Amino acid sequence: MTCPLCTEDGGELLWRNDRSRIVLVHDRQYPGFCRVIWNEHVKEMTDLGVAEQDMLMRTVLAVERALRAVAVPEKINIASLGNQVPHLHWHVIPRFPDDAHFPDPVWSSPHRAGVIHSVDVAQLRSQLAELLGAAGRCSG
Amino acid sequence: MTCPLCTEDGGELLWRNDRSRIVLVHDRQYPGFCRVIWNEHVKEMTDLGVAEQDMLMRTVLAVERALRAVAVPEKINIASLGNQVPHLHWHVIPRFPDDAHFPDPVWSSPHRAGVIHSVDVAQLRSQLAELLGAAGRCSG
Repeated sequence: MTCPLCTEDGGELLWRNDRSRIVLVHDRQYPGFCRVIWNEHVKEMTDLGVAEQDMLMRTVLAVERALRAVAVPEKINIASLGNQVPHLHWHVIPRFPDDAHFPDPVWSSPHRAGVIHSVDVAQLRSQLAELLGAAGRCSG
Repeated sequence: MTCPLCTEDGGELLWRNDRSRIVLVHDRQYPGFCRVIWNEHVKEMTDLGVAEQDMLMRTVLAVERALRAVAVPEKINIASLGNQVPHLHWHVIPRFPDDAHFPDPVWSSPHRAGVIHSVDVAQLRSQLAELLGAAGRCSG
Protein backbone atom coordinates (compact mmCIF):
# COMPACT_ATOMS: atom_id res chain seq x y z
CA MET A 1 0.00 0.00 0.00
CA THR A 2 1.30 3.45 -0.85
CA CYS A 3 1.95 5.63 2.20
CA PRO A 4 0.11 8.97 1.84
CA LEU A 5 2.80 10.80 3.81
CA CYS A 6 5.48 9.50 1.43
CA THR A 7 3.63 10.74 -1.66
CA GLU A 8 2.04 14.00 -0.46
CA ASP A 9 2.82 16.88 1.92
CA GLY A 10 -0.19 15.92 4.04
CA GLY A 11 -1.57 19.45 4.37
CA GLU A 12 -0.71 23.09 3.70
CA LEU A 13 3.06 23.36 4.00
CA LEU A 14 4.13 25.90 6.64
CA TRP A 15 7.82 25.01 6.97
CA ARG A 16 10.16 22.30 5.74
CA ASN A 17 13.74 21.22 5.97
CA ASP A 18 15.46 18.08 4.71
CA ARG A 19 14.38 16.02 7.76
CA SER A 20 10.83 17.09 8.57
CA ARG A 21 7.97 19.38 7.58
CA ILE A 22 5.17 21.26 9.31
CA VAL A 23 1.72 21.32 7.73
CA LEU A 24 -1.64 22.83 8.59
CA VAL A 25 -4.20 20.02 8.48
CA HIS A 26 -7.22 22.23 7.60
CA ASP A 27 -9.37 20.45 10.17
CA ARG A 28 -12.81 22.07 10.01
CA GLN A 29 -13.29 22.22 13.77
CA TYR A 30 -9.65 22.93 14.63
CA PRO A 31 -8.19 25.45 12.16
CA GLY A 32 -4.91 25.62 14.12
CA PHE A 33 -4.37 21.82 13.98
CA CYS A 34 -0.80 21.26 12.73
CA ARG A 35 1.19 18.14 11.98
CA VAL A 36 4.93 17.67 12.07
CA ILE A 37 5.90 14.89 9.70
CA TRP A 38 9.27 13.15 9.53
CA ASN A 39 10.10 13.13 5.80
CA GLU A 40 11.56 9.62 5.72
CA HIS A 41 9.21 6.64 6.17
CA VAL A 42 9.96 5.61 9.77
CA LYS A 43 7.41 4.06 12.13
CA GLU A 44 8.33 4.94 15.71
CA MET A 45 10.32 7.67 17.49
CA THR A 46 12.71 5.01 18.79
CA ASP A 47 13.50 3.98 15.21
CA LEU A 48 15.34 7.32 14.98
CA GLY A 49 18.75 8.06 16.47
CA VAL A 50 18.90 10.34 19.52
CA ALA A 51 20.05 13.38 17.49
CA GLU A 52 17.15 12.89 15.08
CA GLN A 53 14.66 12.45 17.95
CA ASP A 54 15.91 15.72 19.47
CA MET A 55 15.67 17.50 16.11
CA LEU A 56 12.08 16.31 15.60
CA MET A 57 11.03 17.28 19.13
CA ARG A 58 12.62 20.75 18.71
CA THR A 59 10.40 21.14 15.64
CA VAL A 60 7.27 19.83 17.41
CA LEU A 61 7.89 22.18 20.34
CA ALA A 62 8.49 25.11 17.99
CA VAL A 63 4.97 24.47 16.69
CA GLU A 64 3.69 24.39 20.28
CA ARG A 65 5.45 27.68 20.98
CA ALA A 66 4.20 29.31 17.76
CA LEU A 67 0.60 28.16 18.36
CA ARG A 68 0.69 29.42 21.94
CA ALA A 69 1.86 32.83 20.70
CA VAL A 70 -0.53 33.09 17.75
CA ALA A 71 -3.68 31.26 18.93
CA VAL A 72 -3.36 31.70 22.74
CA PRO A 73 -5.12 28.39 23.54
CA GLU A 74 -6.11 27.07 26.95
CA LYS A 75 -3.94 23.99 26.36
CA ILE A 76 -1.77 22.40 23.69
CA ASN A 77 -2.34 18.73 22.85
CA ILE A 78 0.57 16.80 21.32
CA ALA A 79 0.39 13.23 20.09
CA SER A 80 2.22 10.71 17.95
CA LEU A 81 -0.23 7.89 17.17
CA GLY A 82 0.18 6.54 13.64
CA ASN A 83 -2.06 3.49 13.95
CA GLN A 84 -3.65 4.28 10.60
CA VAL A 85 -0.65 5.81 8.86
CA PRO A 86 2.48 4.30 10.46
CA HIS A 87 4.75 7.04 9.11
CA LEU A 88 6.13 9.07 12.02
CA HIS A 89 4.13 12.27 12.52
CA TRP A 90 3.06 14.45 15.44
CA HIS A 91 -0.30 16.15 15.94
CA VAL A 92 -0.10 19.58 17.60
CA ILE A 93 -3.53 20.95 18.46
CA PRO A 94 -4.50 24.19 20.21
CA ARG A 95 -7.45 23.53 22.56
CA PHE A 96 -10.05 25.90 24.01
CA PRO A 97 -12.64 25.38 26.79
CA ASP A 98 -15.48 26.06 24.32
CA ASP A 99 -14.23 23.81 21.50
CA ALA A 100 -16.24 20.74 20.48
CA HIS A 101 -14.42 18.14 22.63
CA PHE A 102 -12.88 20.01 25.57
CA PRO A 103 -11.77 18.75 28.10
CA ASP A 104 -11.58 15.45 26.22
CA PRO A 105 -9.19 14.62 23.36
CA VAL A 106 -10.30 15.64 19.85
CA TRP A 107 -10.63 11.92 19.00
CA SER A 108 -13.42 11.39 21.55
CA SER A 109 -17.14 12.07 21.01
CA PRO A 110 -17.91 15.81 20.86
CA HIS A 111 -19.65 17.48 23.81
CA ARG A 112 -21.06 20.44 21.85
CA ALA A 113 -21.08 22.05 18.40
CA GLY A 114 -18.03 23.97 19.59
CA VAL A 115 -16.63 27.40 18.86
CA ILE A 116 -14.19 27.37 15.96
CA HIS A 117 -11.05 29.34 16.79
CA SER A 118 -9.43 30.61 13.62
CA VAL A 119 -5.67 31.04 13.39
CA ASP A 120 -3.65 33.72 11.58
CA VAL A 121 -1.68 31.53 9.19
CA ALA A 122 0.69 34.30 8.07
CA GLN A 123 1.57 34.99 11.69
CA LEU A 124 2.03 31.27 12.35
CA ARG A 125 4.41 30.95 9.39
CA SER A 126 6.33 33.98 10.55
CA GLN A 127 6.65 32.63 14.12
CA LEU A 128 7.85 29.26 12.82
CA ALA A 129 10.40 30.91 10.56
CA GLU A 130 11.66 32.92 13.53
CA LEU A 131 11.91 29.84 15.76
CA LEU A 132 13.27 27.36 13.21
CA GLY A 133 15.00 29.53 10.64
CA ALA A 134 13.48 30.99 7.50
CA ALA A 135 15.62 28.82 5.27
CA GLY A 136 14.47 25.71 7.09
CA ARG A 137 17.36 25.30 9.48
CA CYS A 138 16.45 23.58 12.71
CA SER A 139 18.12 25.55 15.49
CA GLY A 140 18.50 24.73 19.19
CA MET B 1 -8.41 22.86 43.31
CA THR B 2 -5.78 20.37 44.43
CA CYS B 3 -3.82 18.82 41.54
CA PRO B 4 -3.97 15.00 41.78
CA LEU B 5 -0.51 14.67 40.20
CA CYS B 6 0.97 16.97 42.86
CA THR B 7 -0.46 14.94 45.73
CA GLU B 8 -0.22 11.34 44.46
CA ASP B 9 2.06 9.22 42.28
CA GLY B 10 -0.78 8.76 39.78
CA GLY B 11 -0.33 4.99 39.39
CA GLU B 12 2.02 2.14 40.26
CA LEU B 13 5.50 3.64 40.43
CA LEU B 14 7.93 1.94 38.01
CA TRP B 15 10.80 4.44 38.11
CA ARG B 16 11.47 7.87 39.53
CA ASN B 17 14.18 10.49 39.71
CA ASP B 18 14.09 14.03 41.07
CA ARG B 19 12.56 15.44 37.87
CA SER B 20 10.02 12.89 36.66
CA ARG B 21 8.44 9.53 37.36
CA ILE B 22 7.04 6.62 35.35
CA VAL B 23 3.84 4.94 36.51
CA LEU B 24 1.68 2.09 35.29
CA VAL B 25 -1.88 3.41 35.00
CA HIS B 26 -3.64 0.04 35.57
CA ASP B 27 -6.03 0.70 32.69
CA ARG B 28 -8.35 -2.30 32.50
CA GLN B 29 -8.23 -2.53 28.70
CA TYR B 30 -4.60 -1.49 28.32
CA PRO B 31 -2.46 -3.13 31.04
CA GLY B 32 0.74 -1.72 29.47
CA PHE B 33 -0.53 1.90 29.58
CA CYS B 34 2.20 3.99 31.24
CA ARG B 35 2.43 7.65 32.14
CA VAL B 36 5.53 9.77 32.48
CA ILE B 37 4.82 12.62 34.88
CA TRP B 38 6.97 15.70 35.42
CA ASN B 39 7.23 15.99 39.20
CA GLU B 40 6.90 19.77 39.35
CA HIS B 41 3.53 21.35 38.53
CA VAL B 42 4.15 22.75 35.03
CA LYS B 43 1.49 23.02 32.33
CA GLU B 44 3.14 22.77 28.92
CA MET B 45 6.34 21.29 27.47
CA THR B 46 7.40 24.80 26.40
CA ASP B 47 7.18 25.96 30.02
CA LEU B 48 10.30 23.82 30.56
CA GLY B 49 13.83 24.79 29.53
CA VAL B 50 15.38 22.92 26.60
CA ALA B 51 17.54 20.69 28.84
CA GLU B 52 14.46 19.71 30.87
CA GLN B 53 12.42 19.05 27.70
CA ASP B 54 15.21 16.77 26.45
CA MET B 55 15.40 14.98 29.79
CA LEU B 56 11.64 14.38 29.83
CA MET B 57 11.58 13.12 26.22
CA ARG B 58 14.52 10.78 26.95
CA THR B 59 12.36 9.31 29.73
CA VAL B 60 9.22 9.09 27.54
CA LEU B 61 11.20 7.38 24.79
CA ALA B 62 12.79 4.98 27.28
CA VAL B 63 9.23 3.90 28.11
CA GLU B 64 8.52 3.48 24.39
CA ARG B 65 11.67 1.38 24.01
CA ALA B 66 10.91 -0.72 27.10
CA LEU B 67 7.29 -1.32 26.04
CA ARG B 68 8.39 -2.31 22.53
CA ALA B 69 10.81 -4.84 24.01
CA VAL B 70 8.47 -6.25 26.65
CA ALA B 71 5.01 -6.02 25.04
CA VAL B 72 5.95 -6.14 21.30
CA PRO B 73 2.99 -4.00 20.21
CA GLU B 74 1.93 -3.18 16.65
CA LYS B 75 2.35 0.54 17.41
CA ILE B 76 3.20 2.86 20.28
CA ASN B 77 0.92 5.84 20.93
CA ILE B 78 2.42 8.84 22.75
CA ALA B 79 0.46 11.89 23.85
CA SER B 80 0.67 14.91 26.12
CA LEU B 81 -2.88 16.26 26.49
CA GLY B 82 -3.57 17.54 30.02
CA ASN B 83 -6.90 19.25 29.34
CA GLN B 84 -8.35 17.72 32.50
CA VAL B 85 -5.21 17.67 34.64
CA PRO B 86 -2.95 20.49 33.39
CA HIS B 87 0.14 19.06 35.08
CA LEU B 88 2.64 17.98 32.43
CA HIS B 89 2.41 14.23 31.78
CA TRP B 90 2.80 11.89 28.81
CA HIS B 91 0.70 8.85 27.97
CA VAL B 92 2.65 5.95 26.44
CA ILE B 93 0.34 3.19 25.22
CA PRO B 94 1.20 -0.08 23.46
CA ARG B 95 -1.41 -0.77 20.75
CA PHE B 96 -2.43 -4.03 19.05
CA PRO B 97 -4.61 -4.68 15.97
CA ASP B 98 -7.11 -6.66 18.08
CA ASP B 99 -7.37 -4.15 20.96
CA ALA B 100 -10.68 -2.38 21.63
CA HIS B 101 -10.00 0.82 19.65
CA PHE B 102 -7.43 -0.06 16.97
CA PRO B 103 -6.73 1.66 14.57
CA ASP B 104 -8.30 4.63 16.37
CA PRO B 105 -6.93 6.36 19.46
CA VAL B 106 -7.86 4.84 22.84
CA TRP B 107 -9.97 7.97 23.54
CA SER B 108 -12.36 7.24 20.64
CA SER B 109 -15.38 4.92 20.73
CA PRO B 110 -14.36 1.25 20.90
CA HIS B 111 -14.76 -0.96 17.81
CA ARG B 112 -14.90 -4.29 19.66
CA ALA B 113 -14.60 -5.84 23.13
CA GLY B 114 -10.91 -6.10 22.41
CA VAL B 115 -8.19 -8.53 23.39
CA ILE B 116 -6.40 -7.48 26.57
CA HIS B 117 -2.63 -7.76 26.21
CA SER B 118 -1.00 -8.23 29.59
CA VAL B 119 2.48 -6.91 30.27
CA ASP B 120 5.26 -8.42 32.40
CA VAL B 121 5.69 -5.64 34.96
CA ALA B 122 8.91 -7.04 36.43
CA GLN B 123 10.46 -7.16 32.97
CA LEU B 124 9.23 -3.62 32.27
CA ARG B 125 10.83 -2.32 35.48
CA SER B 126 14.05 -4.11 34.65
CA GLN B 127 14.13 -2.64 31.11
CA LEU B 128 13.49 0.85 32.44
CA ALA B 129 16.23 0.50 35.06
CA GLU B 130 18.61 -0.64 32.32
CA LEU B 131 17.69 2.27 30.04
CA LEU B 132 17.44 5.04 32.64
CA GLY B 133 19.66 3.83 35.46
CA ALA B 134 18.62 1.76 38.46
CA ALA B 135 19.25 4.63 40.85
CA GLY B 136 17.05 6.89 38.78
CA ARG B 137 19.71 8.61 36.72
CA CYS B 138 18.48 9.79 33.32
CA SER B 139 21.18 8.82 30.85
CA GLY B 140 21.64 9.33 27.13
